[in-house]
Amino acid sequence: MSDLKIRVVLNGYGVIGKRVADAVAAQDDMLLVGIADVVSDWRIKVAVEKGYPVFASTSEAVDGMRVAGIPLRGTLDDLLERVDVVADCTPKGIGAKNLKHYREHGVKAVFQGGEEHSLTEHSFVAQANYESALGRDATRVVSCNTTSIVRTLSALKIAGLLKKARGVLIRRATDPWESDHSGVMNTVVPETTIPSHQGPDAQTVDPELDVVTIAVVAAHTNSHLHAWSVELTREVTREEVLAAFRAAPRIAFLRASDGVVALNSTLELMADLGRPRGDMWEVGLWEDSLTVKGNELFYNYQVYNQAIVVPETVDAIRALYGIEREGSKSIARTDQALGIVREFIERRK
Amino acid sequence: MSDLKIRVVLNGYGVIGKRVADAVAAQDDMLLVGIADVVSDWRIKVAVEKGYPVFASTSEAVDGMRVAGIPLRGTLDDLLERVDVVADCTPKGIGAKNLKHYREHGVKAVFQGGEEHSLTEHSFVAQANYESALGRDATRVVSCNTTSIVRTLSALKIAGLLKKARGVLIRRATDPWESDHSGVMNTVVPETTIPSHQGPDAQTVDPELDVVTIAVVAAHTNSHLHAWSVELTREVTREEVLAAFRAAPRIAFLRASDGVVALNSTLELMADLGRPRGDMWEVGLWEDSLTVKGNELFYNYQVYNQAIVVPETVDAIRALYGIEREGSKSIARTDQALGIVREFIERRK
Amino acid sequence: MSDLKIRVVLNGYGVIGKRVADAVAAQDDMLLVGIADVVSDWRIKVAVEKGYPVFASTSEAVDGMRVAGIPLRGTLDDLLERVDVVADCTPKGIGAKNLKHYREHGVKAVFQGGEEHSLTEHSFVAQANYESALGRDATRVVSCNTTSIVRTLSALKIAGLLKKARGVLIRRATDPWESDHSGVMNTVVPETTIPSHQGPDAQTVDPELDVVTIAVVAAHTNSHLHAWSVELTREVTREEVLAAFRAAPRIAFLRASDGVVALNSTLELMADLGRPRGDMWEVGLWEDSLTVKGNELFYNYQVYNQAIVVPETVDAIRALYGIEREGSKSIARTDQALGIVREFIERRK
Amino acid sequence: MSDLKIRVVLNGYGVIGKRVADAVAAQDDMLLVGIADVVSDWRIKVAVEKGYPVFASTSEAVDGMRVAGIPLRGTLDDLLERVDVVADCTPKGIGAKNLKHYREHGVKAVFQGGEEHSLTEHSFVAQANYESALGRDATRVVSCNTTSIVRTLSALKIAGLLKKARGVLIRRATDPWESDHSGVMNTVVPETTIPSHQGPDAQTVDPELDVVTIAVVAAHTNSHLHAWSVELTREVTREEVLAAFRAAPRIAFLRASDGVVALNSTLELMADLGRPRGDMWEVGLWEDSLTVKGNELFYNYQVYNQAIVVPETVDAIRALYGIEREGSKSIARTDQALGIVREFIERRK
Repeated sequence: MSDLKIRVVLNGYGVIGKRVADAVAAQDDMLLVGIADVVSDWRIKVAVEKGYPVFASTSEAVDGMRVAGIPLRGTLDDLLERVDVVADCTPKGIGAKNLKHYREHGVKAVFQGGEEHSLTEHSFVAQANYESALGRDATRVVSCNTTSIVRTLSALKIAGLLKKARGVLIRRATDPWESDHSGVMNTVVPETTIPSHQGPDAQTVDPELDVVTIAVVAAHTNSHLHAWSVELTREVTREEVLAAFRAAPRIAFLRASDGVVALNSTLELMADLGRPRGDMWEVGLWEDSLTVKGNELFYNYQVYNQAIVVPETVDAIRALYGIEREGSKSIARTDQALGIVREFIERRK
Repeated sequence: MSDLKIRVVLNGYGVIGKRVADAVAAQDDMLLVGIADVVSDWRIKVAVEKGYPVFASTSEAVDGMRVAGIPLRGTLDDLLERVDVVADCTPKGIGAKNLKHYREHGVKAVFQGGEEHSLTEHSFVAQANYESALGRDATRVVSCNTTSIVRTLSALKIAGLLKKARGVLIRRATDPWESDHSGVMNTVVPETTIPSHQGPDAQTVDPELDVVTIAVVAAHTNSHLHAWSVELTREVTREEVLAAFRAAPRIAFLRASDGVVALNSTLELMADLGRPRGDMWEVGLWEDSLTVKGNELFYNYQVYNQAIVVPETVDAIRALYGIEREGSKSIARTDQALGIVREFIERRK
Repeated sequence: MSDLKIRVVLNGYGVIGKRVADAVAAQDDMLLVGIADVVSDWRIKVAVEKGYPVFASTSEAVDGMRVAGIPLRGTLDDLLERVDVVADCTPKGIGAKNLKHYREHGVKAVFQGGEEHSLTEHSFVAQANYESALGRDATRVVSCNTTSIVRTLSALKIAGLLKKARGVLIRRATDPWESDHSGVMNTVVPETTIPSHQGPDAQTVDPELDVVTIAVVAAHTNSHLHAWSVELTREVTREEVLAAFRAAPRIAFLRASDGVVALNSTLELMADLGRPRGDMWEVGLWEDSLTVKGNELFYNYQVYNQAIVVPETVDAIRALYGIEREGSKSIARTDQALGIVREFIERRK
Repeated sequence: MSDLKIRVVLNGYGVIGKRVADAVAAQDDMLLVGIADVVSDWRIKVAVEKGYPVFASTSEAVDGMRVAGIPLRGTLDDLLERVDVVADCTPKGIGAKNLKHYREHGVKAVFQGGEEHSLTEHSFVAQANYESALGRDATRVVSCNTTSIVRTLSALKIAGLLKKARGVLIRRATDPWESDHSGVMNTVVPETTIPSHQGPDAQTVDPELDVVTIAVVAAHTNSHLHAWSVELTREVTREEVLAAFRAAPRIAFLRASDGVVALNSTLELMADLGRPRGDMWEVGLWEDSLTVKGNELFYNYQVYNQAIVVPETVDAIRALYGIEREGSKSIARTDQALGIVREFIERRK
């Protein structure tokens, strides 16, 4: 049966990459042939423990990994000979150097949002433009924040409600596991350029979006918070807006009335739900504070930056390979495999 | 000469109160007759060190303060017999209980933003409505965030530019000195109600302002950051907007190009400038990230919540007493005495 | 078969309680008959989602829980009629009020370290005094920090190495999910009493331990760090000390040489290993910084306060019920069921 | 009169350097001839505002500083021609490169603790070894933590009480003004080597000290906290220990009973006392938690790393120049000029 599956390699087993590896392994139409990296510490040792075939991304990394006791199966080049798609989750800028190499091996490639749109000339959010990726040899899944923007604004656009959107992004400072002096402490750092890059970046997926973003970095690590002021095409009821969001995939509701009142309480909920690594792949939108005032709409949502792009990456692999022609079917397939929901807790009343 | 001065008592020597005490003492038309509080720890002991006459706010507090070695001059009631105005900086809700008492003694009173507008039916920001406080027996200086909103939006309004303003307030979680488990850690907590109270609160000062605020609490202690999206009455140049802000008092510019890039770097600058307690009384508005796009305006500013209302409180005392009929003259007098500026660092190019 | 199992109720489904519930459910000699609480928010709703029979801890809580849509099976009193042991994980001080009630129902009870030793006159750490709990009707699992102290110092004592131990405990400020202003920010708060209570508390388990602790609270949420200076009975090699720790249960090694260099990198490792909620039940002892100098020993370890007492609670249930007479066998059984290890990552060299 | 003063240049106007500049300017036997740096942002612009003659540390820096509008008086080389001593507060490692240069100009030099002992073969703490620096052409003021260790242990040693000392140092993660991703967040990072370098570093000042340190970095910025376990030469009373500390310079007492309970409450006290930048030059030792048990002593103290070495640097300048032969007289002179105290708040009972 495995010859009917998309053969995938994961290059860059970091915060995003390790989740993409697990997600690919969970799809019944994909085969994770191997993972590649250059590190030799606990991160890659866990991959070995989990049974993933481990390869060195570069020949330079081989010795260090062997000395550290990593049972290498070979190098990325060996892998590229026998896969269909590479999910490149290497650090910002490295991916750009890899594309030529992938093309030389005739392997399609999905990049992450750290790379520029110009690298592949296609930026991907499944619900917005899955079909436009069919037949391409590469695409870029946009960053966590941009993904959330496209998901939510697309929902409003499809419902015919969106005029323009102005958002403030309160970003996490560094990843939760980082202890190598990469954080910001007891401060907020506003980005010096307005609009911040996420607004224009959303337009690489959908040029019609009228969106401006202001971004700041705050003194926490676990996820991002967005606060949006949206001008609608007309006066609507709050229920119409909620219906628009409910109709879109990968948006789920958080409720302060349930005691889910902050970024960290959401994440405790995810952990309690038994999700792997406590991941939230959905945009977590606070339902009870969503407010409509005339033709204006205001809301907050949470972006769990470590995982939100994982389902998009899975869909992008499927789109490039072309095994599934309809985005909505790929989304449904991915979401089923990962356990993505519309409601985190069943409504019982 | 002292009989020509406004005789002031400070009730509530906390984070705001201690700064108001110093600011009143620095005015040449005011006499700080005494300060009153109920605590008996280092905070009030420092007031003794500084030479302030210390009184007990309540008779219940007398014994504890005496036992702690505080040389009491009497109680607040003794003080009220011989002052003109009380600056009430007691904790939220306490002030409301005090007003009747002050009135019984025929003493005028300035309250802080923790109290409701309904307490005095007058809310005060010097540059917006100084004159309307003349002749009243009480007013309320609005909160730090609301003060900043009125200062900046008034500036745009006076220039004929303001249509509507939508702001996101990233608030500090607790005061820097607090160690009694009052903080929020490694999270952001969005307020569950939109608009947050600051927008409507600004309208208690100027009902014409079309303003909506979304507030969140972030994981830092030192000050607030605001991010604003403003719709202007017309398309303007960036320089017109800057001129409008420059024409208003108590707004000063921060510049990322000078390396002042975050809440904490601003505060290091204030400390380096030798300001008492490192205070910033001005709205610190980032000049270089202020952006105009058609008839839209975007900007960030910093609100140093511990001190921004101090000059307003001084002006409010002056307005209630009626010694100065023009707001602009009171503002100039206060600002001169405190060292409030338009530029933190002289422009040399 | 279920009539051969210990019938257990969990009272207090909080940070510890929810983990104890899962751990009890994972034991093949225990049956989790139900869980009881008084809250009606997401925390208990997740318990419903997980399929646990939910009861109200008090009759006063019934209405609120029903209104919130919690499908209640009854009250704690109903439960007590048909269980053998209650694991009481209610907040500090509540447990003390419950004991009389449990005794009236003839139900044995395990309390947590928030309660005083005097409540049950027996304090429990499995490897130190399992057997002394046999036949009792109640015991108290000591707190997370005390548990770690007894585990590590017992290991040294059994090896005949321990003379006296002086430790500094760097505690987390509040739980990771808490957003209700219970944190401490940008500071360290030393406890005003030396020794802090953990040293004497360890002596309630083993009065022979010569141990003094100094405790501080630092500005993080995820776990505690201990730094110890130990005087040994004689000069030893580092390998002898490591062997003593390796011979003891529930101590596992962390290695900076593997890149596990801080509290948060450990927790990322736990999440990557697929542990439920990312829990670490073991004392995580840094092997490579453990230092022996003459007859002195220095080391650091991490205490994951949310989970470390979970296996002890399971053992305590078993000891009270008497189904297993030997501590080492209960420990082995618990550890097997939970997945407790001696090495987090297999050594391959 | 100025020809009777020590002519000093400050090289490196950073966190330490700007404070040293102010402290030198405050001494009546010193003349601050100029300050030198390479930066061109707000930090150096404030120096201009304060009226300090500003020079470029390197010729490479001249253009950038001029472009930024800094009115340069010349370069460091120009300065070296006409000064006696340079206080080198440049970043770690830079000082080492400068020494040869200073010697070529015949200028004596004081370095900071970022440099190695081997650079000058003399490490300085005024109360321990002032006299041994007389006649030297260079010395190194040890780091903040090491300075505090030598101050406190010297006090015990002089009183004949010190046998051996074991300390845990809870360090701040980055400086308060830093926003350039240099922090550690929501974690504690233990140093991988025990003893940490501070213990051996204290022995470069006094080789007789039997001291071992364990260091960790915690998630705060404002200062360090030390927790010590000391073995004394004999059983003593608590009062004897307090007397030993009281007899030593630059140690002052904090009291939890006064409400000064944590690093941040201390710093609020310093700001309230009107100290420049809220600095604490003294070791802040918590009196009420200091505990004696037989021949063991336990205590906590706070090290305000931004300022504690400032008075030592002033004394070191004086020692190198030789204008004052007795350390105690230099210490008294420095302390008088800066406002260093033994009690932060006068005891009134």
